[in-house]
Amino acid sequence: MEFSSKLIERAVNEMSQLPGIGKRTALRLVLHLLKQPKEQTGFLAQALVAMREDIKYCASCHNISDSALCEICANKNRNHQIVCIVEDIRDVMAIENTGQFRGIYHVLGGKISPIDGVGPSQLNINTVVEKVKSGSVNEIIFALSSTMEGDTTNFYIYKQIGDCGIIISTIARGISVGDELEYADEVTLGRSILQRVPFEKTFKNN
Amino acid sequence: MEFSSKLIERAVNEMSQLPGIGKRTALRLVLHLLKQPKEQTGFLAQALVAMREDIKYCASCHNISDSALCEICANKNRNHQIVCIVEDIRDVMAIENTGQFRGIYHVLGGKISPIDGVGPSQLNINTVVEKVKSGSVNEIIFALSSTMEGDTTNFYIYKQIGDCGIIISTIARGISVGDELEYADEVTLGRSILQRVPFEKTFKNN
Ligand SMILES: [Zn+2]
Ligand SMILES: [Zn+2]
Repeated sequence: MEFSSKLIERAVNEMSQLPGIGKRTALRLVLHLLKQPKEQTGFLAQALVAMREDIKYCASCHNISDSALCEICANKNRNHQIVCIVEDIRDVMAIENTGQFRGIYHVLGGKISPIDGVGPSQLNINTVVEKVKSGSVNEIIFALSSTMEGDTTNFYIYKQIGDCGIIISTIARGISVGDELEYADEVTLGRSILQRVPFEKTFKNN
Repeated sequence: MEFSSKLIERAVNEMSQLPGIGKRTALRLVLHLLKQPKEQTGFLAQALVAMREDIKYCASCHNISDSALCEICANKNRNHQIVCIVEDIRDVMAIENTGQFRGIYHVLGGKISPIDGVGPSQLNINTVVEKVKSGSVNEIIFALSSTMEGDTTNFYIYKQIGDCGIIISTIARGISVGDELEYADEVTLGRSILQRVPFEKTFKNN
C-alpha cells in the first residue's frame, strides 16, 4: 500500500499491529477518525495510554482491577474455597454473566503454548498452586478453552497440585442449549454422550 | 458488559466508537495491548494523535498530503485536464494501483447522503465546479460507488457544471475480469450488456 501521507501511513501501520486488523481495515478506521472531531482521537489515545500505564491486577486472583483486591475477591459472600481457573478476564466476565457461579476465580493470563513461546513461568500458575497447597481451597474448576493448549495447561496445573485431596473438576462440554443435534460438530456431540448426566439433574435446579 | 476496571471500560468504550468494532472486539484489542510492551500502546496513541492533529489536504484536489500540493497534483507528467472525481483517498489508492490513469483526482470527502446528514456543502464540490468553469479541464470522470448516494452526487455535480462543453464520463461497470457470468448479480450483468463495447476495443490496448 502506497500512502500519500507519512502521517496516515504511520497511523495505519500502528493500527494494523492489532490482531484481526489488516491494513485495509486500519485505513478505514483512520479515515473515520479524520472525519470526526479531533477530540475523539484525543479521547481514544488518552484512554488507551491511561489503561496501559495505570492498569492494576488483583493481588489474589490476577483479575484486572482498579483496587488491590478485585470486587469478587473482596466479596465475603462468595465461596473462597471454590476456585475457577480461567484464561483471561473475558472468561471471568462470561461466567459472571451466567449468574451461576458463587466461588472465586484465578486468572492465568493465557495458556501454555510452546508455539507462541508461552511457558508455565509466564502464566499465573504458581500462585494458584500455592493457594491450593496452603489448604484454603476445596475445589478447583478448570474452565480453559478445550484446545490442545487448554488441555496441556490443565494437565500441567493438575500435576503441580499433586495429591492434595481436593476436588478437581472441569466445566461440562456438550451441545449448546437450544442447538439442533444435526448441526453439532462430532467431537462435541461425542463428548456430550460420553459425559451424559442423570436426567433428574437437568431439571433439579430449575 | 460489566468491567472489573474503569480503565478497561473507558478504553473499550472509546475503541468501540470506531466503525465495525463492537464491544467484544474492542475488549479483545485492549487485552492484546495489555499483553504487549507499554511502548506499543504509546506508539499507537502518538501516531493517531499526530495524524489527526497535523494532517493536511492538497490545496488542489483535497487528497491527503504532507505538503501543500499532493504528489499527483505536483507531477507535471500527469494530464491535469482529466479529473477523476472520487469519494475518498482509498479510491485514489485503488485507481493508482491499477497504473491505468495518468490524469489527476478530485477527492470529494464523501457522498451526498441526506440520511447521514451529508449535504453538498459538506463535500469538496464547489472547488471542482470552479475548476471546470475556469476552463482548465477537458474531461471529468465520475468514479463514485454505484449506489443511490453515488448517483445522486454525480447528478448534483453534473447539474452544477452545466453546459461547459467538456467530456463527462463515468467508469465502466460490468462483470469483473475473470468472473463467471452465472455468479454475477443481475444488475451488474444487465449494465454490462447495455453498456457493451466494440470487441476490438477489448484487445486494442493490450
Ligand atoms: Zn481477585
Ligand atoms: Zn492533489
